[in-house]
Amino acid sequence: MEFIEMLGLIAGICTSSSLLPQLIKTVKTKEAQDVSLMMFVVLLVGNGLWIYYGFDRSDLPIILTNILSLGLNIAMLVFKYKYGHK
Amino acid sequence: MEFIEMLGLIAGICTSSSLLPQLIKTVKTKEAQDVSLMMFVVLLVGNGLWIYYGFDRSDLPIILTNILSLGLNIAMLVFKYKYGHK
Repeated sequence: MEFIEMLGLIAGICTSSSLLPQLIKTVKTKEAQDVSLMMFVVLLVGNGLWIYYGFDRSDLPIILTNILSLGLNIAMLVFKYKYGHK
Repeated sequence: MEFIEMLGLIAGICTSSSLLPQLIKTVKTKEAQDVSLMMFVVLLVGNGLWIYYGFDRSDLPIILTNILSLGLNIAMLVFKYKYGHK
């Protein structure tokens, strides 16, 4: 792996990991009523488009980090559905 | 501009805009004690690395969307400094 690809992957881990605090909080509290559904839907669309873009450009860091983000976002949407209404 | 570049820009707007709800909330409440400083520092490092990566790859959507995110993150850090302690 090239140096610049490794740098891209580190960049992706930094920006993807920003989703973790919300996910951990929701798992702990089992409450998701105050979480914005629209924000996670917009993020999901964004991740999907980045993955398409990454494949078009054959850009591995973009593909891998957006698949990671997509997974975290889908987990968040599942918790939103599960804990979002009483 | 190519179609795929426009798609990349839309992807970037989707993922960058996820920072806006927190920023708007902090501006409104003037409270930032509960906001994780570490999360925004990690995001800042990530955006910086993505911008470097984007220039190396001459990838305009990556450069532009990470400059946008970087600006929003710096604004958030200023508010954290201003409102984070009483």
